[in-house]
Amino acid sequence: MKFQEFLNNKAKDFEKILDERLKIKEPKKLYMAMRYLPMLGGKRLRPLMAYLSCRALRHAPNTDSKEVYIFGAVLEMIHNFTLIHDDIMDNDPTRRGHKSVHEKFGLEAGINAGDALFAEAFEFLAESPLEPSLVKQLVKDVALMSKGIVEGQQMDVDFESTINSVKIEDYLKMIEKKTALLFQIAAKGGALIAGASQEDVKNMEEFGRLSGIAFQICDDLLDIVGVEKEIGKPKWSDIRKGKKTLMVIHALQHASDEEKKILKKALGKRNASDEEVEAAVSVMEKLGSISNARKLAKEYRDKAKKCLEKIPDSEYRRLLFDLTDFMVERIK
Amino acid sequence: MKFQEFLNNKAKDFEKILDERLKIKEPKKLYMAMRYLPMLGGKRLRPLMAYLSCRALRHAPNTDSKEVYIFGAVLEMIHNFTLIHDDIMDNDPTRRGHKSVHEKFGLEAGINAGDALFAEAFEFLAESPLEPSLVKQLVKDVALMSKGIVEGQQMDVDFESTINSVKIEDYLKMIEKKTALLFQIAAKGGALIAGASQEDVKNMEEFGRLSGIAFQICDDLLDIVGVEKEIGKPKWSDIRKGKKTLMVIHALQHASDEEKKILKKALGKRNASDEEVEAAVSVMEKLGSISNARKLAKEYRDKAKKCLEKIPDSEYRRLLFDLTDFMVERIK
Repeated sequence: MKFQEFLNNKAKDFEKILDERLKIKEPKKLYMAMRYLPMLGGKRLRPLMAYLSCRALRHAPNTDSKEVYIFGAVLEMIHNFTLIHDDIMDNDPTRRGHKSVHEKFGLEAGINAGDALFAEAFEFLAESPLEPSLVKQLVKDVALMSKGIVEGQQMDVDFESTINSVKIEDYLKMIEKKTALLFQIAAKGGALIAGASQEDVKNMEEFGRLSGIAFQICDDLLDIVGVEKEIGKPKWSDIRKGKKTLMVIHALQHASDEEKKILKKALGKRNASDEEVEAAVSVMEKLGSISNARKLAKEYRDKAKKCLEKIPDSEYRRLLFDLTDFMVERIK
Repeated sequence: MKFQEFLNNKAKDFEKILDERLKIKEPKKLYMAMRYLPMLGGKRLRPLMAYLSCRALRHAPNTDSKEVYIFGAVLEMIHNFTLIHDDIMDNDPTRRGHKSVHEKFGLEAGINAGDALFAEAFEFLAESPLEPSLVKQLVKDVALMSKGIVEGQQMDVDFESTINSVKIEDYLKMIEKKTALLFQIAAKGGALIAGASQEDVKNMEEFGRLSGIAFQICDDLLDIVGVEKEIGKPKWSDIRKGKKTLMVIHALQHASDEEKKILKKALGKRNASDEEVEAAVSVMEKLGSISNARKLAKEYRDKAKKCLEKIPDSEYRRLLFDLTDFMVERIK
């Protein structure tokens, strides 16, 4: 099957599960706020990774199990919960091309909607027909993952007010928590649900981690080189917020005093003019910060693919290769 | 054993578990914010209820199990997580006589600290030595409870901007979710960990629910009749926020047009003078709204005690009776 077609079909499957699970109840405002972002679409990459990981490692490849769909929907709920709270912290008015949750429903409903989605995710997992010992393991993994995402988000916020001293290792540690952990646990959980060997589980976990790092580097790149309509939020907002992305860290490390001045006119300046940001981007281009980030993303993608080569070939493994490419190809 | 002495001893036990579990790691700001409120004390009534419920129903009464301590600490984490986010939503600068978390660490760390405590609670539960099928059940109960608390919190916020039309049934439904659910699941979970019969579990659940309702009515009363130093936050803040407490609903239902004017000068007016609030409180006293609330709290307390009478007598059952009294006696 063509990957894009497959991706669209599966996205619909996951959307249906979320739609059924996130019915509007009383108090209405809470449930409307809770449903709003998960129902605005998104590519459902995390549930898809869980699904493919499970299918690629299941011994009976023709059984399509309900459990991995539930697990995938759980991950999508957690992902959306973190986005809702992140948008409050980052004061972002838009997400997926629409108003962010707190912008549409207010701060209270925004905080509550995130909390309720978080709770709903654990409730859904605990109600699943999975074996209790597997539920126990998955709850532990999802909880650890959620805490890790929050750690990453806190690091991201802390870095905003830090000039110069953020190192590339710090950035990588931060995105590993903020973004890669979700893909890591998606791939791991899928393998666990498949009943895969410990070695295969470890391997898929590493695959998820590496492809997640590649994905976040590309996401950061999109803020600079992407098309506004496609990224669903104002371009250059990371620069204006002072986010310490790979490109920014690289540029600050290699810039002359003159270039540093240009960079600092845009970095963390919410009111920087387009001209000031463009000048900063030109400095990053000149210093090779953007091509360096592209290169690193592709290195992580290739390392992720190496992990996939260790599991048996199948239609689902091929789709996992395609997924890995898809996660970075947006910046080709 | 004297109840007060017992309460203080057990509070120390639970504090020790929380202290050990909530160690400061990187990023430091997150973990400091996460520890701060749970380490500021509190009576640990919810873990205590879980503990006593378990001990009162365990067949081998002399075994002190680690599991119920973990479950109690999990409830205390969830309780603290909800307080942290509530203080952000209510814009409350103080809690337990100290700065609230967002006031001390900022909005971002406040939201993150709540989220991380929520995740930590599920992680702790999933790592406990309890049987997997029991963990599955407790995760489901704790998740459902957390969602219910958020629903209650949303109702509470929604009621603030509603004048006149909030009914006593609405108020009771709201506090049942916002407050009583935690006591309900504490008592239920303790009974489940004890391996109690289905009937005893149901009974303890009802006990927790009823005593929790009594507790919240008293908590609302304390805002009016309490001593500021003891309640740990500014007196009359509920009135100034426009919280629809039992007293306010009762007073609005029975007030003359003249009295309504006096009430509305204070209700929901953040800048109302002490004189304006005192006048509103006098109206509530005159209309019997305060004595009516005291009466209702005691009725719920007595109904809760009726549930306790159905389980076998023991030292622990006696302590549960004392706990029930303690939960309302603050307003005697």
